[in-house]
Amino acid sequence: MVKIIMHGCNGHMGQVISEIVEKDPNAQIVAGIDIADQGKNSYPVFTNIDECQVEADAVIDFSSPKAFDKLMDYCEKRNMPVVLCTTGLSEEQLARVEESAKKIAVLKSANMSLGINTLLKLVQDAAKVLATAGFDMEIVEKHHNLKVDAPSGTALALADSLNEAMDNQYHYVYDRSQRREKRDAKEIGISAVRGGSIVGEHEVIFAGQDEVIEFKHTAYSKAIFGKGAVEAAKYLAGKPAGRYDMSDVIAG
Amino acid sequence: MVKIIMHGCNGHMGQVISEIVEKDPNAQIVAGIDIADQGKNSYPVFTNIDECQVEADAVIDFSSPKAFDKLMDYCEKRNMPVVLCTTGLSEEQLARVEESAKKIAVLKSANMSLGINTLLKLVQDAAKVLATAGFDMEIVEKHHNLKVDAPSGTALALADSLNEAMDNQYHYVYDRSQRREKRDAKEIGISAVRGGSIVGEHEVIFAGQDEVIEFKHTAYSKAIFGKGAVEAAKYLAGKPAGRYDMSDVIAG
Amino acid sequence: MVKIIMHGCNGHMGQVISEIVEKDPNAQIVAGIDIADQGKNSYPVFTNIDECQVEADAVIDFSSPKAFDKLMDYCEKRNMPVVLCTTGLSEEQLARVEESAKKIAVLKSANMSLGINTLLKLVQDAAKVLATAGFDMEIVEKHHNLKVDAPSGTALALADSLNEAMDNQYHYVYDRSQRREKRDAKEIGISAVRGGSIVGEHEVIFAGQDEVIEFKHTAYSKAIFGKGAVEAAKYLAGKPAGRYDMSDVIAG
Amino acid sequence: MVKIIMHGCNGHMGQVISEIVEKDPNAQIVAGIDIADQGKNSYPVFTNIDECQVEADAVIDFSSPKAFDKLMDYCEKRNMPVVLCTTGLSEEQLARVEESAKKIAVLKSANMSLGINTLLKLVQDAAKVLATAGFDMEIVEKHHNLKVDAPSGTALALADSLNEAMDNQYHYVYDRSQRREKRDAKEIGISAVRGGSIVGEHEVIFAGQDEVIEFKHTAYSKAIFGKGAVEAAKYLAGKPAGRYDMSDVIAG
Repeated sequence: MVKIIMHGCNGHMGQVISEIVEKDPNAQIVAGIDIADQGKNSYPVFTNIDECQVEADAVIDFSSPKAFDKLMDYCEKRNMPVVLCTTGLSEEQLARVEESAKKIAVLKSANMSLGINTLLKLVQDAAKVLATAGFDMEIVEKHHNLKVDAPSGTALALADSLNEAMDNQYHYVYDRSQRREKRDAKEIGISAVRGGSIVGEHEVIFAGQDEVIEFKHTAYSKAIFGKGAVEAAKYLAGKPAGRYDMSDVIAG
Repeated sequence: MVKIIMHGCNGHMGQVISEIVEKDPNAQIVAGIDIADQGKNSYPVFTNIDECQVEADAVIDFSSPKAFDKLMDYCEKRNMPVVLCTTGLSEEQLARVEESAKKIAVLKSANMSLGINTLLKLVQDAAKVLATAGFDMEIVEKHHNLKVDAPSGTALALADSLNEAMDNQYHYVYDRSQRREKRDAKEIGISAVRGGSIVGEHEVIFAGQDEVIEFKHTAYSKAIFGKGAVEAAKYLAGKPAGRYDMSDVIAG
Repeated sequence: MVKIIMHGCNGHMGQVISEIVEKDPNAQIVAGIDIADQGKNSYPVFTNIDECQVEADAVIDFSSPKAFDKLMDYCEKRNMPVVLCTTGLSEEQLARVEESAKKIAVLKSANMSLGINTLLKLVQDAAKVLATAGFDMEIVEKHHNLKVDAPSGTALALADSLNEAMDNQYHYVYDRSQRREKRDAKEIGISAVRGGSIVGEHEVIFAGQDEVIEFKHTAYSKAIFGKGAVEAAKYLAGKPAGRYDMSDVIAG
Repeated sequence: MVKIIMHGCNGHMGQVISEIVEKDPNAQIVAGIDIADQGKNSYPVFTNIDECQVEADAVIDFSSPKAFDKLMDYCEKRNMPVVLCTTGLSEEQLARVEESAKKIAVLKSANMSLGINTLLKLVQDAAKVLATAGFDMEIVEKHHNLKVDAPSGTALALADSLNEAMDNQYHYVYDRSQRREKRDAKEIGISAVRGGSIVGEHEVIFAGQDEVIEFKHTAYSKAIFGKGAVEAAKYLAGKPAGRYDMSDVIAG
């Protein structure tokens, strides 16, 4: 039984994770941390992280960049593995992640879903065969109409994964309407579709002579990110200091 | 039996159409016109259009803008319906199309395939229901890596079709990577994917709250444009002067 | 403001609809009916339908066949329009639906989503053009791994819609593994995919010579059925006796 | 320069391969074998295989089971590597393939395309992660309306590939319309869509809790099988006796 402290327990993802863990026989949330205790959780909630001295195996963090520094101090002090899911960290905070990883086990990934992380690995294997054989690579992602950034961080992570497999010789293209020329063999086109309440869809396309291979991931709810975080916490419990990501969890 | 003169008979599409007509019991190519006669056709070929006095019901044109003016003179003089499939006409030539349509039957469409033209009509009906109900509209098109323009003319025709259904209140967006803001309700995003030898794929997406409807057309070969041209010629035979397009052929 | 009585208010869909109506400025749930009142709703709940004398414009029913007969008695007595979303009605109950429709406004559809009902209409228009021109028609549906019936009722409704457009000359095929023969031109193949928690995906395919047109609907949550029910209730308020379905709601 | 003997040179695929090799600077067809010489090829054609004593590095076979036995005698006698693409071999002939592979290099695969063979490998890697994590696996294939068998050999090869990755604990299901029960966790559903002139489309679906991953291969023409055969011949030239398949060609 892996004992988890949920940092940001009263946010949307904190609640999603609480529900997931409740059905998981191998995990348990032993404490929550948030700016206010609304008394809605089955576990004790601390509004000051330093007061939380509950015994635990790992922390899952789905909070905000503001809470990041105190969280890292806490994890280092208690030698506690931490799964970092908060986005929008500053340059300094990202540097701190690397520093902390010398002292404790830290896991951080662009996308927490098992599916996307499996895809990140497989498209790399595919690129080595297909791009080498002359197939062109393209990415199309689709998200809801409230998303402000484009392309998505996951689309860029997929592109980086393809590019890395090909010795980083490719460049990314986001708009073809302003030019009038043939496609460059070393470009990866990335298109962003926005509409409705689409949770997240990513498609990696390998287009060759008379054949096309597509890899597509569709998310139906944000619960998949929560599930990935719980698997990550289980994996991280008891691990030595180091920088981990979801590919380690998948590799088992 | 509809008798057809094939203008541009020795080009790629001229040959494709020759093959299609050979298998069609209701059509026949009675003469071809091209800059040179390579002796490879079963019908007589004229290198000077004015020498072709063979009796016929319609002309199919898949040639080049250079040959356009003499072709229109010829059709007007002989009062012959014409299916215009040549692309890249100049402003003057497009104006001539409208002028000629006052004297003879002229059919011209952005895309000659039955499928695309059916789609142009259906997405308009869909827009009236779905866009009115708050669904966002997006288009993704995919073509081979040699295509120099983006988005495709057919993607733009689809967007115009959607826009027209909504009283032309929408604007088109080709790139979202350079801004950081929520999607405008009145935008139609158009994405262009390029790769391999993809003949042509068009997808119209209606994305709403928790549901998405997609309309997708896939072309497997350019023969579909030839087949559409032959159907158009059959339809046009005997028709009075006027400007026609493929929607008339579909409506029958 | 349309006043709604929610029949089956404490079931999953009853709660989904309660949430939807809460955000809808033009509708309000004025009473709920269910076998037990758990005190969790903002409106009064009656465990005996006959005791509910609250003034209302329509009833939405998402309960069980057991409660059907008393519900219809109630609606007839109060001359109240009713949106019937309960599935699994018996032959007798379905006959009662038709009988009641002579006295009150009754709306019943195979699928309550706006998207699916728009599709039902559009694929019929498409069939008239494309199937007539020789395109083959196929349906693929995908649902979660707990669904016991196959193909889905919606897939069958789509097939019926296609068939109706072609004077009911087609037959349905569910398995091709037990025969060794070419496809019959008058068959509609229907395939059922099951897996994970897929809410519901329906794809209608028109496959012709060198071109394919696909119409696809993806549901991301059951909320779309609730939303459709609310729109139906708004539409039905004040309507005369008769048998309605979602196509009337869409037509407005 | 790899010198190839084309066995079945006047069939459709023999001609497709002749065209492919003509554009390939590293391969050359030095002789053809077929039941009749129509004088249409640029290389000598032998109607009796035993009379063909042209020096060569490999044979590509796209003929018929009838010609198989003489072909194998010939290859063994001349110690010539052979790429076998003929389908419909008898049990005896398949046994002979294994026997011959003890004497010469023999390559045989369910599908010759680079894309499909890459997919066969990748879906196996995916299954190990995703099926182990509880994702359900399904396959949908689409082919033209003249194909008599279903599901396709390639769909079955994909299923076998998935099953092998999971210690062959799965069984295949082709029809769900005749039962009324939940999906078994250890089943792989295989659906066959037929229509129009679809060359071949294969989709492997991994459906989990709130996320779906799809791998899709689309063939636009049979040329991809010819291209794979040529790559196989180049790979096989000079190889020792043994049983090879396309995965060896891909691994390089």
